[in-house]
Formats: sequence, C-alpha cells, structure tokens
Amino acid sequence: MTATANRQLLLASHPKGRVRDEDFRLAESPLPALAEGQVQVRTIYISIDPTMRIWLHPADNYLPMLQHGEVMRSVSLGVVEASRSSAHAVGAFVQGLWGCQEHAVVDAAAVMPLPPIAPLPLTAHFSLLGHIGMTAYCGLVKIGRPLAGETVVVSAAAGAVGSLVGQIGRILGCRVVGIAGGEAKCRHLTEVLGFDAAVDYRRDDFAAALKEACPKGIDVYFDNVGGEMLDLALTLMNVFGRIVACGMISTYNDLSAAGPRNIAQVVIKRLRMEGFVILDPQHDAKEAYEHLLKWAAEGRLQHRAHILEGLECVPDAINMLLEGRNQGKLLVRVGQEP
Amino acid sequence: MTATANRQLLLASHPKGRVRDEDFRLAESPLPALAEGQVQVRTIYISIDPTMRIWLHPADNYLPMLQHGEVMRSVSLGVVEASRSSAHAVGAFVQGLWGCQEHAVVDAAAVMPLPPIAPLPLTAHFSLLGHIGMTAYCGLVKIGRPLAGETVVVSAAAGAVGSLVGQIGRILGCRVVGIAGGEAKCRHLTEVLGFDAAVDYRRDDFAAALKEACPKGIDVYFDNVGGEMLDLALTLMNVFGRIVACGMISTYNDLSAAGPRNIAQVVIKRLRMEGFVILDPQHDAKEAYEHLLKWAAEGRLQHRAHILEGLECVPDAINMLLEGRNQGKLLVRVGQEP
Repeated sequence: MTATANRQLLLASHPKGRVRDEDFRLAESPLPALAEGQVQVRTIYISIDPTMRIWLHPADNYLPMLQHGEVMRSVSLGVVEASRSSAHAVGAFVQGLWGCQEHAVVDAAAVMPLPPIAPLPLTAHFSLLGHIGMTAYCGLVKIGRPLAGETVVVSAAAGAVGSLVGQIGRILGCRVVGIAGGEAKCRHLTEVLGFDAAVDYRRDDFAAALKEACPKGIDVYFDNVGGEMLDLALTLMNVFGRIVACGMISTYNDLSAAGPRNIAQVVIKRLRMEGFVILDPQHDAKEAYEHLLKWAAEGRLQHRAHILEGLECVPDAINMLLEGRNQGKLLVRVGQEP
Repeated sequence: MTATANRQLLLASHPKGRVRDEDFRLAESPLPALAEGQVQVRTIYISIDPTMRIWLHPADNYLPMLQHGEVMRSVSLGVVEASRSSAHAVGAFVQGLWGCQEHAVVDAAAVMPLPPIAPLPLTAHFSLLGHIGMTAYCGLVKIGRPLAGETVVVSAAAGAVGSLVGQIGRILGCRVVGIAGGEAKCRHLTEVLGFDAAVDYRRDDFAAALKEACPKGIDVYFDNVGGEMLDLALTLMNVFGRIVACGMISTYNDLSAAGPRNIAQVVIKRLRMEGFVILDPQHDAKEAYEHLLKWAAEGRLQHRAHILEGLECVPDAINMLLEGRNQGKLLVRVGQEP
C-alpha cells in the first residue's frame, strides 16, 4: 500500500557554529497527490555529507539558500512506490536531492535511476559509488592528475571520500599519505587500506611528522579540511603541485575564520588550486563507475557504511561527521530495504 | 675600451619589512677574466620588479635564497662588450639575471639575445616585451583564459603588468575593471588606457564600488596584490571563475600575514587559482611577442617607462614600486644606451 502521510525534518533556524537539535523540527504532513510526470519515492538511506553544513549557512552557496520551514536538503536513496512517469517503474531504486523526509513526490527528472550492483550491498551506492565515489575519482584523477611515483596527501583520510582517494592513489602508483585524527584511524589507513603512511593530526609534532612522511614533498594535496592543514600543506607542496579543493570541513562552522597565511606559495611554487563540486555536469559518471566497480570487484577498493537509525538522528549526525566520530560512510536509515 | 673594474650592489642583510639602504652596500671590484664560452656585458637598464622583494627573504623561493655578499638579483638589460662565444657578438643587446652591477662576466647560455624592435625604444624590452609583457600575455591568455564578454578584474592595474593585462583584456573583448591607488591613476586607466572602469582602493567604500563596477561578477581576477583585495575578489567571483595568481605584492614585506578568509569560495564556486612564474620553460615567448608587437604597432597597447638613475637607487626603487609611487614600468639606468 502506498503511503499518504509523511514525516519530514524541517529547518527551524540557521545554526550558528555547531548544529543543534533545536535548529530543526520534525513535522507530519499529508503527501501531495501524484501529478503526471512525477514519482513518489520512499526513502531508505540519507547520506550525511560535510557539505550539509554549507547548505545550512544563511546564504546562497552552489545551491540556493535553505529557507526556514524547508525540508533539510540531503542526497537520499529510495525506492519508487508510485509512478506517473515512464522513466521510473514502481520498485526501482533511485537517488536524488529530495532531502530528509520519509517519502517525497518529485518530478521524474529530479531523480536518478540507480544501476543494479549486486553482489554489492545497496549502501555501496553511497560508500563506493554515487557522489562519494565520483568525488574521490574525479577529484583525484581529473583535478589532481597525479603521476605514478608522485606523493599524494589526503586529509580526512579515514572519511568516506578520503579513504577512496588514498586507495585510488595507490592503484595509480603513487605514494599515499593520509591525515586522520587518532591512532586507531591511522592504523586502519596503513594496515587495512594500504596507505604508505598515515599521520595523526592530534600529535603535538604533527607538522614535523607530516614532513617526515613526505620526504619528496607533496605533489597532490586532496584537501577535505581547509584551515591549518591547508596552510601546512602549502609549505610542503612541490613546484607545480596541485591542490584539489574538495572541501574545507574545518571552516564550515565559521566561514569567516582566518585564511591560509601561506597562500603566497601558490605564486612562488606555481601551484594550481582548483575547487569542484561533483554535481556539475562536466563530471561524467561513466568512466568513474567503470573503474570503481572494477577495482572493488578485484578487492582493491574497500568501503564500509556507518548506519544510524531514524530521521531525528540527522542533526547530530552532521556534528558527528564534522567531529570525525564516524567509522565509514555515514548514513541515516529511515526505511527498510525491500 | 672594455672595462676592467666593476661596481656592484651587494646584499648586506635580509631586510625585515621595508627595504633599507643599509641592507645593501656598493662595492668596487676588478672584473674576472673572460673564459672561453663567456661574454662580458655592460648593464644599461635594471628592471625593478615586485618579485625582488621575494628574492630578499631569507629562504629559498622559486630561485635559491640570496646570500649575504651576493650581488642583488635583477632582470638586467645590457650590451655585449667582449665575447668569447659564437652565440653573442660584441655590440649585441642581451638580457639576463646578472643582477645589479655595472658589468658582468657570464656564461653565454645565461643571457638571452634581444631582437631588434625599432622604432620602439630599447626600454620597451621591459615596458612592453620581456618578462613584463610575457607575464601579462601568458598570465591572462594561458592561465586566465577569458572569453569575450567576460569581466576581467586586475589589481595593481596601473603597474607595468597590470596596465598591459587590462589593455589585452579589452582587445580580447572583455569588460575590464582596474584596481589602483588614487584618483589620478584611475583616471589614467579609463581615459588613456581604455579600461571600462577603474576603482580606487583607497576609497572608504572600495568594496561597494568594486561590486558596482562588476555588475555581472568577476570571471577572471588577475591578482598582483594578494591580501585583502584577493579576499574581496573571492566574494565577487562567478562560478567557474579563474584567479591568475601572478603576485601578492601586499604580502611581500611579511609573508606570514593573515590569509584570505574567503578561501572556501574556491570550493563553493569551483574556482581555479593558479600561480605561474614567467621564467618557467612552458611559457613560449613566440606567440606572446607576435601579439604584443602587433598590438603595439596598431596603437592598441600603450606602455611607458619610469627611469631612475644609478645603482644606488635600487633599494628605494623597490619600496617605490611596492608603495605604488611609480608611473609606468620602473627601471634604473646604470649605463648609457650606445
């Protein structure tokens, strides 16, 4: 039977600093009628991503500013439960930006069909493929353009994107150094994921340790973090190095924090620092998917999901992610898999 | 008759902040004997460039650190007065990094022959061509890649590089906005050089005025200045904008000054920020020279030299440049043209 009532997580106020439960409210509402060309989806997983904190700022970003009373934006995965579009059949898995709600009625063009990936689990659409895998693959390969033998450093290396970036760097023949918080995460990077080295940014001698882990300097810095880590990386970059500006998670709670003091290294070392957002149309999924699926099938790309339960988990899940308390790709399950 | 004695400007100490005369000393010394494969040059003009302040920091940069007692580095232009190389005949004009001295004995490969450019004056090798013209042309065309109709903003727009960048941007069909210090310079940009708009950064309402001058945002920011102006430009950049990181003159007296707070815009707006140094071999002079000479002959590119007299002027000339007190390409004449 198709649902007619819906639960939604609505924005109550734009958070200042850390996200609080009070910045949101849960609401129940009837689902709108399904019009021609639309589909009704039932949400299964919500992807928790650092960029959600950007979306919560009271300003337009690469997407329009979220207004009070709007459904919190998210990349969501679900199943079509009713359809008035030839593009999506009932029972098909789809992904889209319909946000943090248990059901949604959306235009057929606003959701993307998901290919079958068995024997991989459904969560691999977020832990290996989808926007996570695309970000890692396209960011490293297309923006960073590493050559075999070069040194790739990735920050937030134990995160969903970072752990794929490091493994892809190894597959491409690079020396890969991960930066992560805590000894356990660092051990996971070297012992399980095959990074050449991992450096704990909580160490007092972090700067010296990172330098030691990069005896030939840094050729590609895949930056998920910004802030002081970007500043340090600037001092270790080699001439003609590339900085993949994927995210600046350390600055998302306060976008006006102090900037990198060593920015003049961009001139002195002829660096290229380039931002990208995987939603942009120039990022073609085909090449990325072929490689990610092949490498995963060969056992060369490991990925894992960290699953929380229920819509009400979303606000704290955002904090959890920004504070590095998750292990694996962070998801919130709001409905059962069929 | 060929000189056998030489006057040199030597580094006495690495300046902290503003350059002082005491950071240098003038010395007289005999010229070394000319060996096979070498030439002896007589210096005519020394180019005063912002990068000289970078060279004076006590650290390696894109060139090795200058040591106490070394001749101050500069791009110099002179005439061959003795030669034991088939590459350069006596009387030929050459350019090289032999620095602030009246004569020099150098390897033939370390100097570059200068093509005849009459009816242009000899100083046009620095005000239109050479490293200045190459920096403007390659930086804007190859790094910035502006399209007709886009908005190009250039800082230090009344400087040698900036004034060429703006004029080239106009030739390419862009809307060109210059940033300069003071009303007189701004008037020169719009009334003489044909910029679409010029904004005086000393105005109290500078940020609002720059925004108003760029009603469609900024597509290419040619940055000679860094610091607060870079920070402001980051807020006005359009999606997929490009920042040509040519120089960061505002930070050269203190390379550890605060960095750009708005650096996260690189991610949010998918910007590319790319540094370059015109000495790098990938910058091919041929294309740049053809265009610069053609446009100058057509009267579409104006350039002028601001000439000081004597080696002892060099230290204050560097300050003059960093403080924007020059009008036109700043040169120090240390010998007469033949």
